[in-house]
Amino acid sequence: MSTLAEIQVSVQPLADRVLVEPAQAEEKTAFGIIIPDTAKEKPQRGTVLAVGPGKKDEPLTVKVGDTVLYGKYSGTELTHDGKDVLIMRESDIYAVLG
Amino acid sequence: MSTLAEIQVSVQPLADRVLVEPAQAEEKTAFGIIIPDTAKEKPQRGTVLAVGPGKKDEPLTVKVGDTVLYGKYSGTELTHDGKDVLIMRESDIYAVLG
Amino acid sequence: MSTLAEIQVSVQPLADRVLVEPAQAEEKTAFGIIIPDTAKEKPQRGTVLAVGPGKKDEPLTVKVGDTVLYGKYSGTELTHDGKDVLIMRESDIYAVLG
Amino acid sequence: MSTLAEIQVSVQPLADRVLVEPAQAEEKTAFGIIIPDTAKEKPQRGTVLAVGPGKKDEPLTVKVGDTVLYGKYSGTELTHDGKDVLIMRESDIYAVLG
Amino acid sequence: MSTLAEIQVSVQPLADRVLVEPAQAEEKTAFGIIIPDTAKEKPQRGTVLAVGPGKKDEPLTVKVGDTVLYGKYSGTELTHDGKDVLIMRESDIYAVLG
Amino acid sequence: MSTLAEIQVSVQPLADRVLVEPAQAEEKTAFGIIIPDTAKEKPQRGTVLAVGPGKKDEPLTVKVGDTVLYGKYSGTELTHDGKDVLIMRESDIYAVLG
Amino acid sequence: MSTLAEIQVSVQPLADRVLVEPAQAEEKTAFGIIIPDTAKEKPQRGTVLAVGPGKKDEPLTVKVGDTVLYGKYSGTELTHDGKDVLIMRESDIYAVLG
Repeated sequence: MSTLAEIQVSVQPLADRVLVEPAQAEEKTAFGIIIPDTAKEKPQRGTVLAVGPGKKDEPLTVKVGDTVLYGKYSGTELTHDGKDVLIMRESDIYAVLG
Repeated sequence: MSTLAEIQVSVQPLADRVLVEPAQAEEKTAFGIIIPDTAKEKPQRGTVLAVGPGKKDEPLTVKVGDTVLYGKYSGTELTHDGKDVLIMRESDIYAVLG
Repeated sequence: MSTLAEIQVSVQPLADRVLVEPAQAEEKTAFGIIIPDTAKEKPQRGTVLAVGPGKKDEPLTVKVGDTVLYGKYSGTELTHDGKDVLIMRESDIYAVLG
Repeated sequence: MSTLAEIQVSVQPLADRVLVEPAQAEEKTAFGIIIPDTAKEKPQRGTVLAVGPGKKDEPLTVKVGDTVLYGKYSGTELTHDGKDVLIMRESDIYAVLG
Repeated sequence: MSTLAEIQVSVQPLADRVLVEPAQAEEKTAFGIIIPDTAKEKPQRGTVLAVGPGKKDEPLTVKVGDTVLYGKYSGTELTHDGKDVLIMRESDIYAVLG
Repeated sequence: MSTLAEIQVSVQPLADRVLVEPAQAEEKTAFGIIIPDTAKEKPQRGTVLAVGPGKKDEPLTVKVGDTVLYGKYSGTELTHDGKDVLIMRESDIYAVLG
Repeated sequence: MSTLAEIQVSVQPLADRVLVEPAQAEEKTAFGIIIPDTAKEKPQRGTVLAVGPGKKDEPLTVKVGDTVLYGKYSGTELTHDGKDVLIMRESDIYAVLG
């Protein structure tokens, strides 16, 4: 998005938060997960970029690199390192795809 | 739904979530469970495809292969491996049919 | 309700849920419990058909065969084995009649 | 209310529920408790007929025979043994009169 | 309020409830507490007549005879022994005056 | 406010409540804290006059004499010893100024 | 903002509160974090100036000097030492930038 050198900055989520990069639309069929076009809330798929340390008694389950399904309206958008990413709570994640 | 080879992908639900494949309408009478046509919320029947590890102190009760009753508006729809499935919390499941 | 052989299917409620068969209207006077016709929510009477294992630290109190009083709008209707039954949480049950 | 022999039936409240028979209007002055006629919610007085076993860590405080004060809109009405009675949670009871 | 002999009746509040007799309007200036006439909720002052045993792990702090400040809309009115009194939860009491 | 001798009365807040005397408007600039004039809720500054004993497992942090910041709509007004004061929960206090 | 000598005053947040100085608009691109202009709630970036001691069992994770992302509507504005700052709960902070 810029030809200028940018200072790389890491994002360390707090507590039970997870940084997720949403999958591109074209990747989706390759994995055999097709999100149906219905009136219900549709889950989204993405890749975990960073995870928080968890809460006191609840370490997180998802790991960096996991492909995850999450709710359509989950998380807060930010642009990190030129990519549109989302920061959300782990409880907003439904499942890990393996 | 496709003659193309698809990469099989497993879905590992998180925490207390359960992946359920809804029963087809024609199977229902065979089991002797008839959902009455009233104004109340009607439970639905399906088969458990995958279960989460449970929460810290609460392992899940349902197992893969269980036939379960759940609320009509429970869960989030997704298409997995060519099938319409639902991902829901175990607390959305009313009972196991045996 | 059908002359066809039907596969009997048991319903195992999960957690703190209870399967209840509502009493017929004509049985009610025989037990001396008359539900008054007022503006307040009226309790209903029924027989427990199956009970869940309870939650982690709270086993259930009601037993199969108990006659119970419950709130008018409690539970979810389903038809089990040709009978209209209700599945509800034990906390929706007010009392056991003895 | 009936000259027919009726089967006596006991009511065993569940958990923290209490069965209360409301006091007759004429009894009230005899005890020196007069419910003022104001816009605030008025407490009612009654006699405890049956008590539940309490919740896991909280046995009930009121006993059968206690005269209790409770909120005007507390509880659910039922007719038991020819009497209009109320079933309510102990937390709906404000005080015991001695 | 009556020249008839009345049976004295004690009121034993349950759990964390407290029986309070509101102070008369004319007493208030004598203690140096003046409730300002603003749009905010005004605390009221009264004397504790009886206290409950407290909840399981939380004995009550106020004692019989304490002068207390409480919220204007706290508690439920009743007439006890010819006096207008209030029954409220201890958490409705802001402070003890010494 | 009165030339009459008044009986001094102490106010002992209950539980996690704190008695605060709001700062006068003219004092505010002297401390370098200027409350901006925006649409957001503005914190207020005051001096702690008395503190409660805290809740069972949570002793209070603020001490008598502390200058504190609190929400604009926090607390309940009363007049104590001729001064307009506020009684609020410690959780309504944002910070101590040192 | 003033040529007058001002008394420096420290702000010690209570419990799980954190004092944050929002980043200036022009600094933002230098760190490679660009907040997209969408309908979703946008996170904000700032520097931690002071932190509370945490709650009883939950010490805080962020430290003075951390660059943090937080929700657009998080916190309460105040002017401290001539700067517009925010006081918020740590749970309003999404991530630490490193």
